[in-house]
Amino acid sequence: MERGITVKKSEDFSEWFTQVITKAGLCDYAGMKGFIVFMPSSYEIWENIKRFLDDKLKATGHKNAYFPALIPESYLRKEAEHFSGFVPEVFWVTHTGDSELGERLAMRPTSETIVCDSYSRWIKSWRDLPVLINLWNSVFRAEITATKPFLRTSEFLWQEGHTAHATAEEAEKEVRDILETYRQLIEEQLAVPVLLGTKTEAEKFVGANYTLTMEAMMPDGKALQMGTSHFLGQNFSKPFEIKYLGKDEKDHYVWQTSWGVTTRMIGAVIMVHGDDRGLVLPPRIAPIQTVIVPIFYKNEDRDKVLGKAKELAELLRENGISTHLDDRTEYTPGWKFNEWEMKGVPTRIEIGPRDIASGKVVISRRDTGQKHEVMIANLPQEIMKILESVQANLYAKAKQQLERTIKTTESYEEFKQILENVGGFVRASWCGRPECEAKIKQDTGATIRTVPLKREEIFGNCILCGKDARDVVYFARAY
Amino acid sequence: MERGITVKKSEDFSEWFTQVITKAGLCDYAGMKGFIVFMPSSYEIWENIKRFLDDKLKATGHKNAYFPALIPESYLRKEAEHFSGFVPEVFWVTHTGDSELGERLAMRPTSETIVCDSYSRWIKSWRDLPVLINLWNSVFRAEITATKPFLRTSEFLWQEGHTAHATAEEAEKEVRDILETYRQLIEEQLAVPVLLGTKTEAEKFVGANYTLTMEAMMPDGKALQMGTSHFLGQNFSKPFEIKYLGKDEKDHYVWQTSWGVTTRMIGAVIMVHGDDRGLVLPPRIAPIQTVIVPIFYKNEDRDKVLGKAKELAELLRENGISTHLDDRTEYTPGWKFNEWEMKGVPTRIEIGPRDIASGKVVISRRDTGQKHEVMIANLPQEIMKILESVQANLYAKAKQQLERTIKTTESYEEFKQILENVGGFVRASWCGRPECEAKIKQDTGATIRTVPLKREEIFGNCILCGKDARDVVYFARAY
Repeated sequence: MERGITVKKSEDFSEWFTQVITKAGLCDYAGMKGFIVFMPSSYEIWENIKRFLDDKLKATGHKNAYFPALIPESYLRKEAEHFSGFVPEVFWVTHTGDSELGERLAMRPTSETIVCDSYSRWIKSWRDLPVLINLWNSVFRAEITATKPFLRTSEFLWQEGHTAHATAEEAEKEVRDILETYRQLIEEQLAVPVLLGTKTEAEKFVGANYTLTMEAMMPDGKALQMGTSHFLGQNFSKPFEIKYLGKDEKDHYVWQTSWGVTTRMIGAVIMVHGDDRGLVLPPRIAPIQTVIVPIFYKNEDRDKVLGKAKELAELLRENGISTHLDDRTEYTPGWKFNEWEMKGVPTRIEIGPRDIASGKVVISRRDTGQKHEVMIANLPQEIMKILESVQANLYAKAKQQLERTIKTTESYEEFKQILENVGGFVRASWCGRPECEAKIKQDTGATIRTVPLKREEIFGNCILCGKDARDVVYFARAY
Repeated sequence: MERGITVKKSEDFSEWFTQVITKAGLCDYAGMKGFIVFMPSSYEIWENIKRFLDDKLKATGHKNAYFPALIPESYLRKEAEHFSGFVPEVFWVTHTGDSELGERLAMRPTSETIVCDSYSRWIKSWRDLPVLINLWNSVFRAEITATKPFLRTSEFLWQEGHTAHATAEEAEKEVRDILETYRQLIEEQLAVPVLLGTKTEAEKFVGANYTLTMEAMMPDGKALQMGTSHFLGQNFSKPFEIKYLGKDEKDHYVWQTSWGVTTRMIGAVIMVHGDDRGLVLPPRIAPIQTVIVPIFYKNEDRDKVLGKAKELAELLRENGISTHLDDRTEYTPGWKFNEWEMKGVPTRIEIGPRDIASGKVVISRRDTGQKHEVMIANLPQEIMKILESVQANLYAKAKQQLERTIKTTESYEEFKQILENVGGFVRASWCGRPECEAKIKQDTGATIRTVPLKREEIFGNCILCGKDARDVVYFARAY
């Protein structure tokens, strides 16, 4: 297997993606169609994402718990819309050992129903509210067609939050607050800019009153939903009988939310930031922020160079910079450069005998390829400055890219041409009727990705039917 | 429901355990027999266990990854002993949506087989070794009888390590190193003393050459296996064809290990340290190490007391002490004392107007009930001292308790009487023959929990057959 990426990202995006995830050691295809192994290189990114989000959620009073991976069919059936939405994708457990089960068990496609079953026992009084629980687990949705590592697989990792509140207002505030936490994660940590908005009735979570969403744009012109936050109203609390005795001495059904982000975010990072040499990781989520490659050609330089390299690695680690010293002797410096570039490490430090003599090292940044000669004495500060600059640059580039893909039109002909030729988001006015939405999907494959949170001023009439427009919305084909 | 525990631990241990886990809010029974919900109170303990172990594993070069929860039946069948050991307990997935699968998928009972499938692709050369991978996930083993929350359920949380090495020596060193890491976790963090040793052929992991184990003793006289570390030899590398090209330019099969600890450790903590008032948590794994309960009876004292309590909470947190301020107004101090005692918080700080005036507060420790009056100025240091003392005391008490339960005998009559009347470990000589081991199990329900790592001097003959003894071993009935 050729070690480097053999196609250009701009020329064969799909093949480029496959090569990057394989050659950077991010995932392995498991034996069952649609399943992948998250190898350490991608799992470490997930751990960094988890740490950031987990801290944020705990700081706002959320607690983690664990609910079973199996859900009785009867639970799923309690909320009818929810059941019919998920049932075609459910993995069914029918036997243990040689015995057939009395009731089939679903591998969790999402946990609302089993969580609600517990909440009906846990919540008795207003004193028990709010309940703010988050779960880190994996979910199972049988993907028959168009599976793609990280983006669409039959099992993926995620977190799912499930909260119960005394009032609708409190619950709706939670839905918005979580969206803002997600935005910080995605824009400020992953450096992936998103459009924020509401899903239409056709696109919302099955069982929700409404769904807030974040939508990113991939380089092939297809949108990617990066996370959603749902207001469930009392759709689950009624069938599951989750009631509390209020201060008014009366019974009330609770108001609920649920929300989640998944490992597909890693897919977005790969697609948005990667280049022809491989992965490019934003420093804030990079497992390794800087790699030190010692360079010496004479054996007599070995100890001096390695000693200094170790000292610098220690110094950087003490300064909170995640540092890897590549002291393997079985590979050449050039081989190592290529490997760490492939793996997307944001900065590389080269150090050899002459550098030590002059008290300087060379830092290369992964995003631009620029080289900086810096004084060893200032190394931690200089690296930190460069890492911040890489983070900012990746976001700025991606933001520009996102903005370039947004096209506004009042003509359905042009609308179709944009989607056919370049993709991206098409900003258009819409009458609000599901029939127009469905017809457009049928014609073009594009769906309404989001109705902006900040209502935009209407221009023209509905892009399809020409009747009065209700909203300006963003259409796109999507993963 | 009565809020406090209504039975004595010494009088009805099983009912006591059920009341503690329910009333301290540790777990909820899910709708399916044998499954539990890990509620935040127990999940937080698991998070603390995870953090400690994860840091230790990473510091020794292990990396985390994630493998699918589903395993094709054909993978499980590749190692015949392994398959026959696990198959009676397997949850089988047979359908997705309405379609029957071509091949049944097992919900992972353990991941050796699917890991080995990947390793056969990942490992090519000596340069790729060792592979040191750890997984944090849950496993599924259908428990038909005698399910018990935390100790024996159909799904539980654990970590499973899977390593591959160039030589048997390296792999065996890993097996021992991991056991030592586990011992540190269990004895030094959970304050649960264990016996270290080897499992017999009858009791080892199905598929291993041998299994190292840690065995704790519960107050009802039954042993609990706290974790195991297996030397797999080449039992999996051969059927899965995991080979590497050595420096000698020849192909070799790798040598493997696997090892795991589970959420049953939480069960041990509850059983070993709990008392008639509820849970007692070792400070090092307690989610809350100290709870501050403000006490005031006049409304005019409210602001002053709450203000000081907040200030102290902040101060303690800055000193790395996990602190909870219970400022709820709907409950009395007495109610709060009972609640936090039930939940096992190691120390409680009471603060009222007179304490503030005198510059002192009262600290109560959960394990002994002792009260200490300490100067507010020294609070962080004093709390830390007390927490260390609680940790040491819990371990010392448990260690004494463990030692008291070990009975040595040369008489099979006495052997049976001990097991029947008091339980605990029975230390006896054994000829090494599986027939004797099996007969003893049949007679008494006791198994050989461990053959000590440090070989003990033989006394007398085999406890059953009277022939020459090979080892001194520890028998017990077990969970």
